[in-house]
Amino acid sequence: MGRAAPDPQSAAQIVATAPAGAWVAIAPDDLLIMDLAPAPDGAHHRPAPAGAPRRVVIQLIAEPLARPWVANVRRLAAAHWWDGTSVNRVQDNYVAQWGDATERKPLPAQLNATSAGDYTVNSAALPGAERTPGPADVYAPATFFYRGWPIGAEGQGEGTAWPVHCYGMVGVGRNVSPDAGTGAELYAVIGHAPRHLDRNNALVGRVIEGIEHLSSLPRGTVGLGFYAQAAQRVPIARIRLARELPPAEQPAFAYLSTRSASWARYAAARANRRDSFFVQPAGAVDICNLPVPIRRVR
Amino acid sequence: MGRAAPDPQSAAQIVATAPAGAWVAIAPDDLLIMDLAPAPDGAHHRPAPAGAPRRVVIQLIAEPLARPWVANVRRLAAAHWWDGTSVNRVQDNYVAQWGDATERKPLPAQLNATSAGDYTVNSAALPGAERTPGPADVYAPATFFYRGWPIGAEGQGEGTAWPVHCYGMVGVGRNVSPDAGTGAELYAVIGHAPRHLDRNNALVGRVIEGIEHLSSLPRGTVGLGFYAQAAQRVPIARIRLARELPPAEQPAFAYLSTRSASWARYAAARANRRDSFFVQPAGAVDICNLPVPIRRVR
Repeated sequence: MGRAAPDPQSAAQIVATAPAGAWVAIAPDDLLIMDLAPAPDGAHHRPAPAGAPRRVVIQLIAEPLARPWVANVRRLAAAHWWDGTSVNRVQDNYVAQWGDATERKPLPAQLNATSAGDYTVNSAALPGAERTPGPADVYAPATFFYRGWPIGAEGQGEGTAWPVHCYGMVGVGRNVSPDAGTGAELYAVIGHAPRHLDRNNALVGRVIEGIEHLSSLPRGTVGLGFYAQAAQRVPIARIRLARELPPAEQPAFAYLSTRSASWARYAAARANRRDSFFVQPAGAVDICNLPVPIRRVR
Repeated sequence: MGRAAPDPQSAAQIVATAPAGAWVAIAPDDLLIMDLAPAPDGAHHRPAPAGAPRRVVIQLIAEPLARPWVANVRRLAAAHWWDGTSVNRVQDNYVAQWGDATERKPLPAQLNATSAGDYTVNSAALPGAERTPGPADVYAPATFFYRGWPIGAEGQGEGTAWPVHCYGMVGVGRNVSPDAGTGAELYAVIGHAPRHLDRNNALVGRVIEGIEHLSSLPRGTVGLGFYAQAAQRVPIARIRLARELPPAEQPAFAYLSTRSASWARYAAARANRRDSFFVQPAGAVDICNLPVPIRRVR
């Protein structure tokens, strides 16, 4: 990318002017809506005044990635299992993590068993027509985007493939292996891409709106960023699949097709920024510095 | 790295047990102490109760990197120029930026002129005895650590070299080139490494303690994360070189020598994590996922 003449448009302009056909609607069933308790009192949070809603929208990852966990997440949301749980851990430059702090809340019946074998898929399960080559990478021999998701892969994109831990990605907390987590304990990446977690934790989605409600939470002060006191935990009012919301509240989003010409131009412009601000275009971009553009449709 | 037998110790254990001789004291004159106004009221900030101090410690970068700006930062601190200014911009997954929001506060006399030519140095100015090769990189043909600082470089480490934008690095805000900033407007990286800023902005240091006081601030809601209203800005009580503090308040820090055997073991362990948690060591690490260990001595 970037060998051709510089694009006259910046990456932001390319996204803003991408044709309607370059956008892919995100299925309502792939949207998870997480409402934290409204913002507490406190001048600290002036941009979100006391009582303001704190809604985080998560897009579930495309099939067949992380299939057993994604199915569990849908069941947990349908069972309203997370309602009344909390964000329990916020570790700076790492993750915000939520779930049942007591670790005693009974799980819904019929959750899938999970295992480390499903952290990866065979690349053959990701149709070539849905893939676009991604940039060179330090961690994975190959990268590509699959239906808008950043993927690392072995070989030339054959062999195993796995989603990668970029900012905003949502993963599954677990205990020591062979435990692979159920999906009841989730985390969002709020720092530099922790790529060492790739193939060590399942990734079930990404935050597409409202990540600031997680990333700007106070950091926990005991080991791994857990809150020292129960009162410091941030209450979760509810987590729902979007279709459970009243129709007027159901948001709609689209992502920029990673198969579109606009995407190719966007990726080239991110690697070779020529906005008036830049003196020295990088000539390269890492996969986590190439976020897939998402827009709110409604 | 990592071809040898796995280290029996984790990266954290290697750092915790590194011998005294592996640590290099950070000169008191290289420490900049930034005190935000004490934490405001508000249950939101329970881990930092209302009235708690919010101190951020910045280590200034090693000579001769960013020399004209570092000299200016020392002058600005000595002149108490930042006292009463504010954090004006907090952009999620990017930077927290501070300085004079009015852009009218007169600067001290005798600041250095600055220019883009000083974003890089000639590698010959960075003695080989102070360098350790760094990992493969997407952005730079070569990397190394120089006296504890992450550096990108052309060629095989000859030609030009420049510090890189990792989490916590502190850079100089500027207007459109040829403006290169004075050092009065500073930002700290609070998200995924914005490596496209390398060679586009001067880097004058890194936050070594208290970054949570910047990274957990509310995000600004207008363009580029600026606060919409003046009242939302976060007041800076003072910024001082450490030697100006009362002796009992002067902190002391050391960094793990990037020339030490402990560093080599730490870097290998970060690339091949074998803690019981990990199923699949990455076999690689990117330069910004290899933070130089810093410890507080006093």
